[in-house]
Amino acid sequence: MNRKIILKSRPEKEPLNENFQIIEEELTAVQPGQVQLKSIYLSLDPYMRGRMNAGRSYAKPVELGTVMEGEAVSEVIESNSDTFKKGDVVIGRTGWQTMPLVSEKIIEKVHNPDLPLSLALGTLGMPGRTAYIGMMNIGNPKKGETLVVSAASGAVGSVVGQIGKIYGCNVVGVAGSEVKANYVKDELGFDHCLNYNEDNFEKKLGEICKKGVDIYWENVGGKTFNSVYPHFGDFARIPVCGVISMYNNQNQQLEEDRLPMLFRNVLTWRLRIQGFIVSEFPEQKLEAMQHLEKWYLEGKLKYKEDVVEGLDNMVEAFQGLLRGDNFGKLLIKVN
Amino acid sequence: MNRKIILKSRPEKEPLNENFQIIEEELTAVQPGQVQLKSIYLSLDPYMRGRMNAGRSYAKPVELGTVMEGEAVSEVIESNSDTFKKGDVVIGRTGWQTMPLVSEKIIEKVHNPDLPLSLALGTLGMPGRTAYIGMMNIGNPKKGETLVVSAASGAVGSVVGQIGKIYGCNVVGVAGSEVKANYVKDELGFDHCLNYNEDNFEKKLGEICKKGVDIYWENVGGKTFNSVYPHFGDFARIPVCGVISMYNNQNQQLEEDRLPMLFRNVLTWRLRIQGFIVSEFPEQKLEAMQHLEKWYLEGKLKYKEDVVEGLDNMVEAFQGLLRGDNFGKLLIKVN
Repeated sequence: MNRKIILKSRPEKEPLNENFQIIEEELTAVQPGQVQLKSIYLSLDPYMRGRMNAGRSYAKPVELGTVMEGEAVSEVIESNSDTFKKGDVVIGRTGWQTMPLVSEKIIEKVHNPDLPLSLALGTLGMPGRTAYIGMMNIGNPKKGETLVVSAASGAVGSVVGQIGKIYGCNVVGVAGSEVKANYVKDELGFDHCLNYNEDNFEKKLGEICKKGVDIYWENVGGKTFNSVYPHFGDFARIPVCGVISMYNNQNQQLEEDRLPMLFRNVLTWRLRIQGFIVSEFPEQKLEAMQHLEKWYLEGKLKYKEDVVEGLDNMVEAFQGLLRGDNFGKLLIKVN
Repeated sequence: MNRKIILKSRPEKEPLNENFQIIEEELTAVQPGQVQLKSIYLSLDPYMRGRMNAGRSYAKPVELGTVMEGEAVSEVIESNSDTFKKGDVVIGRTGWQTMPLVSEKIIEKVHNPDLPLSLALGTLGMPGRTAYIGMMNIGNPKKGETLVVSAASGAVGSVVGQIGKIYGCNVVGVAGSEVKANYVKDELGFDHCLNYNEDNFEKKLGEICKKGVDIYWENVGGKTFNSVYPHFGDFARIPVCGVISMYNNQNQQLEEDRLPMLFRNVLTWRLRIQGFIVSEFPEQKLEAMQHLEKWYLEGKLKYKEDVVEGLDNMVEAFQGLLRGDNFGKLLIKVN
């Protein structure tokens, strides 16, 4: 049997249990060019919230009644393909399901199956490559510069900050709790990490960033952006990777999303604010993987995972991700 | 006698007559390394409003009691320099004055003195280079793309749009009156030009930009930005060259400067929004001049000047510039 989660209706704000449905279906015959997979790890990433909306975005929305989109690491259990054989460990956008039957064209072998498999969905996967590509193409870190990273303990932010350290930056994380902030400082080796829920957050941020922020990595938007913004230095680069604080409010004009005078300061401070999507830099994918693996093997890329067991808990885990309840890269381990 | 305009006090909003004072002073001896100039044309440019403020910007504010900053084309009437001789026509940031005594280090010979001298302050000067450098480094125009230019009849905008035509873009101007819009279409050769004061402006803009805006050249900010913004296409580039609508309101949080959800769309539309200042690209100055002169001599860069006679009318002319009263590049002809 395959068990899959379909999008039943589009969430208005927070995704609700009723927006999804788990469906069971019989396995069917593996046609030529197809492989039958058994999912091992399913990835949960903030961008998935965008796929649930009907509006204009960089990718088409998930159609109602179809399986939710997402990447997974899986094992080939039956193959009718020349490229893959039984036992291969593969990665692909195979969706929120336990036993996907897919075309050989949408999967590839895991780059280095000797490393922990879950890493292919995190530090050595799409989130890690996102960090690499945004830093190399927009962030452009230079020795001695100050890099501020929002959502610093998350899958992308943790890699961004560690790349910043590799390039000699003064790295300041922003995270959602004291425990996360301590982890970012003590384990990931950021120079500073502040808890944005702390009373003195803005004051402390101002003290730490007295010399100005050269790179602000935007994962969050809203209040976090507004707190860092006054400290932007001349020629600051702002790679816009995510705005998780806004994902549940796409139709709402939140007060904290209003950026008075932004344009004036874009000019006078010569800011570069640029959105990007990792999949639009395919020519840099191999380079990114090679650098990330090398740094990982040298011990320069630490990571933390938040592993939830079972497809049945996937929707609840995703709801928590949008609230920042997870601690580290969020994964579903399929039983 | 030299006559000069000093900044007496800092304008709160619109610059008032009382913020300035005309001072007459005797000419003094020309020291070694100095030249005595007679100003021919004084340039008036929107950036000068920023110099009147005390706040953080890309250049230091003009100090109270000192001559207002600005570029001028002048004739050398006495030289104590090996570089310049009597009769040379020079350009430099010599300020709002009729007979500047300056160091040889702050002036240079006009690039091509056979062309109309006033052009060295407009299409073939700083405004033209601003257009060139912003288009080449950020706008990156490609054949068939749609370029929207705000303040289209102005010194910078007129060149931006004509560069867009040279690169095969579909060029849409935005200007402040019917007369200006007609000039931009009929004389400068833009494909379209809309009057933003017209009732149907937003509707017409939407029709013209149905396929999406690839480049939006920002000279204005505020309402103009907000009108073009919904039409930005994926990967749109927004060189931020000026925000003239905000220059008189640096302390005010105008409703039209609030850009709800901007950051979400920076990401999902993969926008690149970048401020820049022409003087920070010195290595491209010669290349810019060469291209602009070539295009001008080929008849591809038309221009219009708004010439006001006399230093006594300079403050009033500048007040009008910030209201958009001028039509074409604004210059003071010194009598």
